[in-house]
Amino acid sequence: MKKSLLALAVLGVFAGAASAQSSVTLFGIVDVNARYVKHGNTDAVKQLGTDGINSSRLGFRGVEDLGGGLKAGFWIEGAMSPDTGAAAQTWQRRSTVSLMGGFGEVRLGRDYTPTFWNLTVFDPFGTNGVGSSLNLFVAPAALATSVFTGSGAATLVRASNTIGYFLPSGIGGLYGQVQVAAGEGVTGNKYMGGRIGYAAGPVDVAFAYGQTQVGSDDKLKTWNLGASYNLGVAKLTGFYSNANSDFFGGVDGVDVTQTNWMLGAVVPMGQGEIHASYNKASGKDDADGLSAKQLAVGYVYNLSKRTALYAQYSRITNELTAFSVTAGSVAAFDDKSSGAEFGIRHSF
Amino acid sequence: MKKSLLALAVLGVFAGAASAQSSVTLFGIVDVNARYVKHGNTDAVKQLGTDGINSSRLGFRGVEDLGGGLKAGFWIEGAMSPDTGAAAQTWQRRSTVSLMGGFGEVRLGRDYTPTFWNLTVFDPFGTNGVGSSLNLFVAPAALATSVFTGSGAATLVRASNTIGYFLPSGIGGLYGQVQVAAGEGVTGNKYMGGRIGYAAGPVDVAFAYGQTQVGSDDKLKTWNLGASYNLGVAKLTGFYSNANSDFFGGVDGVDVTQTNWMLGAVVPMGQGEIHASYNKASGKDDADGLSAKQLAVGYVYNLSKRTALYAQYSRITNELTAFSVTAGSVAAFDDKSSGAEFGIRHSF
Amino acid sequence: MKKSLLALAVLGVFAGAASAQSSVTLFGIVDVNARYVKHGNTDAVKQLGTDGINSSRLGFRGVEDLGGGLKAGFWIEGAMSPDTGAAAQTWQRRSTVSLMGGFGEVRLGRDYTPTFWNLTVFDPFGTNGVGSSLNLFVAPAALATSVFTGSGAATLVRASNTIGYFLPSGIGGLYGQVQVAAGEGVTGNKYMGGRIGYAAGPVDVAFAYGQTQVGSDDKLKTWNLGASYNLGVAKLTGFYSNANSDFFGGVDGVDVTQTNWMLGAVVPMGQGEIHASYNKASGKDDADGLSAKQLAVGYVYNLSKRTALYAQYSRITNELTAFSVTAGSVAAFDDKSSGAEFGIRHSF
Repeated sequence: MKKSLLALAVLGVFAGAASAQSSVTLFGIVDVNARYVKHGNTDAVKQLGTDGINSSRLGFRGVEDLGGGLKAGFWIEGAMSPDTGAAAQTWQRRSTVSLMGGFGEVRLGRDYTPTFWNLTVFDPFGTNGVGSSLNLFVAPAALATSVFTGSGAATLVRASNTIGYFLPSGIGGLYGQVQVAAGEGVTGNKYMGGRIGYAAGPVDVAFAYGQTQVGSDDKLKTWNLGASYNLGVAKLTGFYSNANSDFFGGVDGVDVTQTNWMLGAVVPMGQGEIHASYNKASGKDDADGLSAKQLAVGYVYNLSKRTALYAQYSRITNELTAFSVTAGSVAAFDDKSSGAEFGIRHSF
Repeated sequence: MKKSLLALAVLGVFAGAASAQSSVTLFGIVDVNARYVKHGNTDAVKQLGTDGINSSRLGFRGVEDLGGGLKAGFWIEGAMSPDTGAAAQTWQRRSTVSLMGGFGEVRLGRDYTPTFWNLTVFDPFGTNGVGSSLNLFVAPAALATSVFTGSGAATLVRASNTIGYFLPSGIGGLYGQVQVAAGEGVTGNKYMGGRIGYAAGPVDVAFAYGQTQVGSDDKLKTWNLGASYNLGVAKLTGFYSNANSDFFGGVDGVDVTQTNWMLGAVVPMGQGEIHASYNKASGKDDADGLSAKQLAVGYVYNLSKRTALYAQYSRITNELTAFSVTAGSVAAFDDKSSGAEFGIRHSF
Repeated sequence: MKKSLLALAVLGVFAGAASAQSSVTLFGIVDVNARYVKHGNTDAVKQLGTDGINSSRLGFRGVEDLGGGLKAGFWIEGAMSPDTGAAAQTWQRRSTVSLMGGFGEVRLGRDYTPTFWNLTVFDPFGTNGVGSSLNLFVAPAALATSVFTGSGAATLVRASNTIGYFLPSGIGGLYGQVQVAAGEGVTGNKYMGGRIGYAAGPVDVAFAYGQTQVGSDDKLKTWNLGASYNLGVAKLTGFYSNANSDFFGGVDGVDVTQTNWMLGAVVPMGQGEIHASYNKASGKDDADGLSAKQLAVGYVYNLSKRTALYAQYSRITNELTAFSVTAGSVAAFDDKSSGAEFGIRHSF
């Protein structure tokens, strides 16, 4: 009985003309921390940081049952900056409309790229905070130290103007998706890629491939493989990523390959969890010799399902590179970059 | 009993101190399509388009019963761009506060202009998508091909800083409104206008007049007449619009008149609907000889009240003009412009 | 029974995984008025104004019961501009996450500064509209007439990147808070301050101190004292504020002190209220001789708890200063500035 009242309430609040099976959800996350960052020999900087273990966000999503096994859904979600509140609210984290059924899901709009999923799902830090695996993917400026930044591709995490298809769930642990993104005349936006994975019991493994138009005849081609194995006392995770572009820094024929690999673990301890990862990035071809390492550890204490306290530390060692533990700051070439965060994450 | 629970829920969610008759509604639309656009002899462009049959939006609105037949209400609604999610959320589609009662409604804020209603209500495409009647009102750039664009008036669709009055419903089919907008020192913003109409049985007919300050002593004066008749098997619609300004392209004394007329039809077919319209724009006085035609057809299939699939096609023939089927792209003078959209519209 | 259904509904709508004690609230205010402003001998300007008696806003807030007397909460709230709808939605009015318990509250994010509270709480106009006490704190441009504007401090009302602590309620009428804000390299942002007060029966009195980094070695130091006494037939209020900076207009060593005091009253009359205040600002030290006065009266008629109509008038007399009754317009030095507002405030 309680359930039907609940559905009724949802209906009443949000959609006068909706059918009884509908629901719309407001959701969000506020993640704020006290952060200390140090690059090379410069003084440590104290900040009120955000997004330590989850990206701060605000969103609305809903699903409508169309009958006959068919559903329609929407999802709009944008970033928030609770340290200053200053960022204009957009819906750039995701804005999609979907048709879903036994055939799977067709999704249109702005969405994550298939190639991003293996990086974030298998990263013990979920590509957030000072220990994010993405720290060794994105150069603070468009330096020769990152094939993703230097090639001008805008599709490392998300793409606009996409049409995607997802396999249905319940086909023996298999999952997968394909996606195309219209470039609409903007270099670095045109993308196509796919991902195929298998999850059953303690095992989860997935492969993804994607390519982005970065010059008139040039593509950033990237593939990655991620996996995790749950031992119970700990979940071990890892990924390997390879990305190549011969259009780099605006110059055709400069051939840069970047490989990244990560090994990590999540160890549950009562209401808490220890997270740890080791990341390594290497330049090849015209970026030969460039190298960076990141070691990160963290502890998350869950006050509830929605609210957690956390502490985490990360340190990057650059070798001809200039990666940083925070997106906002630039480390000099060959410098170390380290950071610590003590924060709270609250979901709603 | 269900109804009272529903009201209770609404109350609980949104307004702790509200009276029991209150309600606040979150609402929105996500409309995304695969679009093909072609101008003259240039290659067709593939896009992920939006707003094919309805403008994508997010909004909140509510009504409070003040007792004694008096009500207060608010409405904030802004555009969304689900193809990229990039547009900052504003409330420029409408942001108003109202007092309502037996006397009608007094409304303050940003709102549609009275002169816009006849264009959108009687357009089978609701002034959305490649077949929108507005395509022949708004020049892609401020060319001599549109008196609305060229005069610098910002009031074709909406006005800021308005005070409006609406007749109450239930006065024998009569409806109407008047509106004034403070210019606040911005040329093209100061507006006053009104609309009067009659709807009963199969008939709906309305007349509107408005004038916008476009120079120190100059006004864009516009009037239009719209009507529809529902035959049952089809609803026939049409409008005629006349707009004149003798301040054009920043020059006083350039006298431009533009007339637009439209004939259209909506034919219901089970869960679907066929939409069709023919639009013609003509320049007069200093814009004599300019002319453009648009022919548009579409099919909407309703999966539910909230969700629809659609396909539509439109083609503009320019004669000394440069109108386009999409706001984002510019057709050369005398070029044809055509576009097709295949999409989904989901309301919440 | 009704109460449990209500909680259930809240839960269902907003937080699938939430515990039953949780709630999330959407809230907001739309405040729009017809405003007349006149500076010196210039013509009166007619505007559709906003924020006459309350700042227009949109927000979401929630509290989660973590058990054991501990709670987590969030609050995001941003301004709205219902006259034009044009402002991009941000959350700059407040964006915080909190841990609350018997110990009080720890709050992180963007929040009001402790020194602001005495100015707004004891102002009969709540620092809103043409009669706001802030009118004599903020110069329309960075003139030598305001130590707050001229010193470059950005912390008169709010600060970003703050960590704050609030005393718990229920400790014998005592209340208080302290706050530090990380500057993060931006001059005028680094702040620390506190406030301590006592409220019991008809009495409320509070003292606050704050200092903001405005030069490499320079601080804006401000303290204020506010109080109110409720006689029943009227509530009398007042504050005194002293602010000093020897870094002014970008020049080190220019020593400016500004004092402001206010006396006011709120007189309840059935469903209505009369508000009145007298403000005086005086420059000292290098701003010696500068002076401004403001006299303001208003009447608010409450149609309900959420909706009110209001009329108010304010007049500023400048003496070597250039303060204005509206933030958007600049009065010449020594000019009078006056304004009247007739509006509606609707909360949701």
